[in-house]
Amino acid sequence: MRGYRGQILYTPEPGKLECVPDGTVFVGDNGCVQRVVREIPKDMRSVPVDDFGDKLILPGFCDLHLHSSQLPNRAMGYDGDFSDWLNNYTYPTERLYAQPEYARKLNRRLLQELWENGVTGSVIMSSTSAAATADLFEQTVRSGLRAGIGKMNSDLGAFGEPNETTEDSKRETLELISRYAGKNERVQLMISPEFIPCCTDEMLGFLGELAQKNRLSVQSHLSESPGDVGMVAKRFPGLDYASVYRKFGLFGQTPTVMVHCLYNTEQEVELMRECHIHVAHCPISNNNVPSGRLMPLRRFMERGIPVGLGSDVAGGHTLCMMQNIVAAVQVSKQQAVLFPEQKPVTVQEAFYLATKGGGSFFGRVGSFEPGYAFDALVIDDENLDDFMERSLPERLIRFIYRGDSRNISRRFCQGQEIAKPE
Amino acid sequence: MRGYRGQILYTPEPGKLECVPDGTVFVGDNGCVQRVVREIPKDMRSVPVDDFGDKLILPGFCDLHLHSSQLPNRAMGYDGDFSDWLNNYTYPTERLYAQPEYARKLNRRLLQELWENGVTGSVIMSSTSAAATADLFEQTVRSGLRAGIGKMNSDLGAFGEPNETTEDSKRETLELISRYAGKNERVQLMISPEFIPCCTDEMLGFLGELAQKNRLSVQSHLSESPGDVGMVAKRFPGLDYASVYRKFGLFGQTPTVMVHCLYNTEQEVELMRECHIHVAHCPISNNNVPSGRLMPLRRFMERGIPVGLGSDVAGGHTLCMMQNIVAAVQVSKQQAVLFPEQKPVTVQEAFYLATKGGGSFFGRVGSFEPGYAFDALVIDDENLDDFMERSLPERLIRFIYRGDSRNISRRFCQGQEIAKPE
Repeated sequence: MRGYRGQILYTPEPGKLECVPDGTVFVGDNGCVQRVVREIPKDMRSVPVDDFGDKLILPGFCDLHLHSSQLPNRAMGYDGDFSDWLNNYTYPTERLYAQPEYARKLNRRLLQELWENGVTGSVIMSSTSAAATADLFEQTVRSGLRAGIGKMNSDLGAFGEPNETTEDSKRETLELISRYAGKNERVQLMISPEFIPCCTDEMLGFLGELAQKNRLSVQSHLSESPGDVGMVAKRFPGLDYASVYRKFGLFGQTPTVMVHCLYNTEQEVELMRECHIHVAHCPISNNNVPSGRLMPLRRFMERGIPVGLGSDVAGGHTLCMMQNIVAAVQVSKQQAVLFPEQKPVTVQEAFYLATKGGGSFFGRVGSFEPGYAFDALVIDDENLDDFMERSLPERLIRFIYRGDSRNISRRFCQGQEIAKPE
Repeated sequence: MRGYRGQILYTPEPGKLECVPDGTVFVGDNGCVQRVVREIPKDMRSVPVDDFGDKLILPGFCDLHLHSSQLPNRAMGYDGDFSDWLNNYTYPTERLYAQPEYARKLNRRLLQELWENGVTGSVIMSSTSAAATADLFEQTVRSGLRAGIGKMNSDLGAFGEPNETTEDSKRETLELISRYAGKNERVQLMISPEFIPCCTDEMLGFLGELAQKNRLSVQSHLSESPGDVGMVAKRFPGLDYASVYRKFGLFGQTPTVMVHCLYNTEQEVELMRECHIHVAHCPISNNNVPSGRLMPLRRFMERGIPVGLGSDVAGGHTLCMMQNIVAAVQVSKQQAVLFPEQKPVTVQEAFYLATKGGGSFFGRVGSFEPGYAFDALVIDDENLDDFMERSLPERLIRFIYRGDSRNISRRFCQGQEIAKPE
């Protein structure tokens, strides 16, 4: 058992911010929060306590969607058209990522940047390369960070040649499962079809069975733009996008993250609720590569569908979750202009999305309620001083809007302090 | 004469990016660019050259609109309603800013942060406090940075009590003019009515005359939201917003910056073109405090109306012009979704807005064409390395999306290197 003392902030519910000034969070040897207290009770007085003074203690951030192979392409090609983007940036980097030495270097950089940005949990879609995915898995285990990682399956050429053959894709996925599935508590292997337009029926069915048989969670893209929505509608007449995933066993049969979700019908949203789908909302990506609609975030939140934030690197250009929180708030305000019944989210609500909202994919992660994994950040906001007396909620908001990785002074995952990955 | 060697980038026109790899910009003793060359010509070989190696040399940024007294309120109150914002944040800070010791501290911080963010030129609306404005003027002169600064005039209570009496406002404005008008080459005193709803007719007429008599430039807000547009329409039936400013001598009779410009009619836009109005587009502010419309940026650019970017601190939460550039691109993309004829701006176009677009308010500022003031930044982008060979335009874009003040290693204004304001 160990205690951490400081200015404690977390959100057990969207919009409900718990503030414990000069509080102490006690963490058990299992790395989970035992309790958060204002006054240290008698029976805890012998427990060693690290005192972070006036610094903030927050739950670590969760990035619910990013593409590891696309890390180099942040900022690149957002002005061009989609096929230029794929051909000039996306594909060349994917090809390089298949080279072991390059993948090792890139994965190391990714983990370092996740660490820097206080992203203690992330859901990562790797490329089709099994070798790069294996390396990422192993490096992530060594880092101590929490993640779900999957080799992308993409055996149907929706935008040109397929990225891999069905046979190779299956074989490599099976190999990865035999090596990594269920082998680590913090890092889980995920089933990761790119999305329906890039997978054959055979592949989708195969992956759905594999996920259920091995109890592997699933990540994929859903309804990002009229383009993919149209392709799915044409290929599966009479079935909606969500139902296609469902039919193949890839929609909530095991824990599932669906990314974007901009164009879903009322019926699909209802199916998502029923199937406990986790939604990864990627506001910066939606701003960089607009698809014609804004995210109807409030619709999902009102139904109690768990939503987290995704950087969608490299559709998004930053792993900084504070910037992703700000973008979520801003996009929701613009959405409310168009659809006034969809009330904008507050900063506190968006902070919830970036912590417990996304963290819920991993279980009891993203909050400091008893039993939650102590995934935490210590925030030094001294340089953000604005000559005013600020309350703890104001200091949190100020850090979110104005802070950057320099303000994150320590990171914990499952109760262990995490060093910068080497 | 002195030369600066490096990877030179600037935009003589929107969308036209000049790249001079391993180039040298020669700067005369007047602080202005003489020429940019790839090879140093014979007659220049004796000129001393500072070699910045592989670093980028860019024009300094221009922030065409910010409120000095609101610096502490970045991030604060964006979730609340407008009157809470005014009462809980805006007004208390304005009142504090009237205290000399506080104003001195805040102005110093502002200049330090402008320096840090590479904002070598800015148009600053101070508060109604003449003392705070005087201090800001003097500190800015000492800093070596370029700026336009004005005491805000606000003698009509559009949102409660007026901020000052007409008499005090006039007297203090005259005093400031007698002390500072025309006294410094880089720092100019500006006429700064808050906006029409907060100024009496008497004040507007007085300021218009004053501006013309003393050849002082003007800054004010124009058509930010249905609220102010409605108030002006009600008070001046039959006149549009722009024409009210024009009628009082505050719309292009001298160089004029109008801020926001979200709701202007075709007729007003035409008047803006005729009157050579400079428009300050504040995309982050529009995102934080949405008013129901997005900026029709392309409309202004197509007419050749000079547009610059404004942080609008504290409607915007950051002085980082790279973030403002990214927001301008993103907002223009969302606008294009709604109005497809308004083509989104590219990063290079938005970079133009943040340099030469805004800089044109000061004259020949914001570019490296011959005769332009050498207001410049040296950018060290080594930590942004992405394991790929990147062209100079790509490096610029990468810095804009992913860089922060840490990447700005040197700042020049009018040919002089600027140290961090003390």
